[in-house]
Amino acid sequence: MSGSGEGAGEDRVSGPLSAGEDRSGAADRARGAPVGFFSSRWIESPDWVTELAGGLPRGFRAAGVACGIKQSRALDLGLLVSDAPQTTSAARFTRSGTLAAPVVRTRQRCPLGGLRATVVCSGNANAATGERGSEDATKMAQAAALAAGVVESEVAVASTGVVGVPLPIEAVTRGIAAVAGELRAGGEIDFAQAIRTTDAFAKRVSLSVSLPGGEVLLSAQAKGAGMMSPKFATLLCFVQTDAALSPETCDLLLGVTAMRSFERITVDGQLSPSDTVILQASGESGVAVAPETEDELRFGEALDALMRQLALLVVGDGEGARRVGRVLVSGGDSGAVDGVARAVANSPLVKTALYGGDPNWGRISQAVGMAMPGAAPMELGIAIEGVQVCERGAYVPHDADSLVQAVQRAEVEYEITVPGEGANAEVFFSDLGHEYVTVNADYTT
Amino acid sequence: MSGSGEGAGEDRVSGPLSAGEDRSGAADRARGAPVGFFSSRWIESPDWVTELAGGLPRGFRAAGVACGIKQSRALDLGLLVSDAPQTTSAARFTRSGTLAAPVVRTRQRCPLGGLRATVVCSGNANAATGERGSEDATKMAQAAALAAGVVESEVAVASTGVVGVPLPIEAVTRGIAAVAGELRAGGEIDFAQAIRTTDAFAKRVSLSVSLPGGEVLLSAQAKGAGMMSPKFATLLCFVQTDAALSPETCDLLLGVTAMRSFERITVDGQLSPSDTVILQASGESGVAVAPETEDELRFGEALDALMRQLALLVVGDGEGARRVGRVLVSGGDSGAVDGVARAVANSPLVKTALYGGDPNWGRISQAVGMAMPGAAPMELGIAIEGVQVCERGAYVPHDADSLVQAVQRAEVEYEITVPGEGANAEVFFSDLGHEYVTVNADYTT
Repeated sequence: MSGSGEGAGEDRVSGPLSAGEDRSGAADRARGAPVGFFSSRWIESPDWVTELAGGLPRGFRAAGVACGIKQSRALDLGLLVSDAPQTTSAARFTRSGTLAAPVVRTRQRCPLGGLRATVVCSGNANAATGERGSEDATKMAQAAALAAGVVESEVAVASTGVVGVPLPIEAVTRGIAAVAGELRAGGEIDFAQAIRTTDAFAKRVSLSVSLPGGEVLLSAQAKGAGMMSPKFATLLCFVQTDAALSPETCDLLLGVTAMRSFERITVDGQLSPSDTVILQASGESGVAVAPETEDELRFGEALDALMRQLALLVVGDGEGARRVGRVLVSGGDSGAVDGVARAVANSPLVKTALYGGDPNWGRISQAVGMAMPGAAPMELGIAIEGVQVCERGAYVPHDADSLVQAVQRAEVEYEITVPGEGANAEVFFSDLGHEYVTVNADYTT
Repeated sequence: MSGSGEGAGEDRVSGPLSAGEDRSGAADRARGAPVGFFSSRWIESPDWVTELAGGLPRGFRAAGVACGIKQSRALDLGLLVSDAPQTTSAARFTRSGTLAAPVVRTRQRCPLGGLRATVVCSGNANAATGERGSEDATKMAQAAALAAGVVESEVAVASTGVVGVPLPIEAVTRGIAAVAGELRAGGEIDFAQAIRTTDAFAKRVSLSVSLPGGEVLLSAQAKGAGMMSPKFATLLCFVQTDAALSPETCDLLLGVTAMRSFERITVDGQLSPSDTVILQASGESGVAVAPETEDELRFGEALDALMRQLALLVVGDGEGARRVGRVLVSGGDSGAVDGVARAVANSPLVKTALYGGDPNWGRISQAVGMAMPGAAPMELGIAIEGVQVCERGAYVPHDADSLVQAVQRAEVEYEITVPGEGANAEVFFSDLGHEYVTVNADYTT
């Protein structure tokens, strides 16, 4: 989670960085960003993946500037471009019934398999903005196409921030003209800053991936914080590689890894109108990732680890989050176990208990009952951090003091068994604390 | 919301009580209990209903004692009895899949049309307690039957509080023996205290209802606070009348009024394993309420107003609640409008904005979109306190300053229109603030 700000993978670093190697990430770390990307015990980084200090894969340039949406004058406009004409891509979007204008435009106007550039503004979601919002999204795409030297339909637009307020479009288009002059291979650091809203730290990573066919680079920038959904988690996430992938492979790999990452997290159970995840492959490494090859398998596993760890960073930086929970549910019905996992992960009672470091498993039992009406009496089992606290629906004697200690840690695991076998579900979730209330009780005014 | 502690309706009071008339309610009022039961602008009390200072209808006695479940030594055991052998009743329960032992026992062992007594303990829900919990619920019923002079199957048992901890059953049965000696016509005041958990104030009312056939009394005691569901709101609520109702009429009236009250509220969207609502009719007034008569109509409207106002008191006393919201949704599909109303009412983003006195309607648009995936572009309309802020899915110019003032009040109304006509839904909800986090982050330990 640090970067040299230059180059595209020359400054290889394995393991946590020392403070001296850090230039732009100091503020991030002071605010709680983990040092070393693969920081969760729940994510295993494959052997063929090496973390880099920063940089974009070959073919990509990015930058971020302050265009004036944020009153703080923080960076609020980002542009990310692939200079390679053969670039392929894939994208996933929110399923909200009240889509933001940029999402509508990108879905309607862009061939999603060939996106070259992405322009993002933060501080304003350009959502619930009507015809004016559509026009503004188009103006952003036009300005970005000009700035990036690509055609308009190759530009994805994304906006994040307050809903229901028209964009200051002239400031934004001026910002797009300005950011064009800043585009550079190490510009993902500013880009990652420019897409933040209430995120406490920027989320980005640069990886080197050793494939049988050769070495490729993989990088990503994401923002999350609030309005995180139980379905397709709310966020912006942009992933780049210089491997050569067909659009179909891009789509397949993004679909599978999104299902296992951003589809399995929740901060506050809220679906945003703006969720956007884009994977772009420039092919500039000369290494092709063909379907059903060892290359694809390894690349896919690297992408999977990257996406899952990024998703966990998003949860860990949920507005005011202190701890991250992982709920694993097993039972006989796939719909039921998924419902149980989401009910537990979204329960404000479970989430406040996680915040308080309180192993109050009765609330988990309650959430399970809510998700499975009519199932009583239920042979429910609950283990917290490996300690069985409930079996066949009833209390099991256990060492309560050591359990209290166990749930004070940054990651807490809940294993739940409901009747039946063969189906499993996993959801990662943040706690609910005072900081969430503080952040959200007075956001517009 | 006050009571003389004696008699059954002699101390008639219309309108708010003066401090001098209050004996036991002073502490309640200091903690925010409304003075005068029908305190919401959303509830109209029928002309034929008069609020009384307190007291149970003829035929009923009640009491509350401290049996030692609550470490604070507050009242935690209540008993309510009808001495009339002809008493009829009806009941509704939670639909949780992890039912508390008392709910399982009452549903399995009691003819619900002829409940004579209810025994309640607070501080412990006797839920997720297995075979031991079932035995304890039976012991409570047996002890209460002995104390009340009725048969065991005529006793409903309810428990509320922490889930997953066995009851201190010996203390509870000793308490039941002790409370028997305290039973009295004005004992509903202590009974209402004894069923509280995190409620900031006791919720009870005594009404006189003028029917064509004569005057009857109607009283109720409820507890709510947290673990309030979007379906059958979590709570205990006990309603008594000395009107004579058939069990079928009891069931019909309770069913209809519960649907319009406790089924339409949410504090935190959580379904408890313990929800219980019981209506008992002693018949001791000698006034019969026969089906499809003016008596039934008027009695039903009185019960409806009582239940809806009680439900609003429960919402207003949601853990840490500062404000109550009412969301009204109209559209073409009854499932969709209900889903939208509940999504808005349960959105932590909407609830924190309500807490903060922030008219952030973009979050309402977001919640609507979450409830109606795939509906974009949507002709969404939103009005807050009568001010149209969104039309056809987009911002409408309005006086933002006066809107900010309007949402500072204790009750805030949101009107939402989604496409179509003919379907309506209403949900009442509390805000989400620091106090909810404080109350819930450290409840067991």
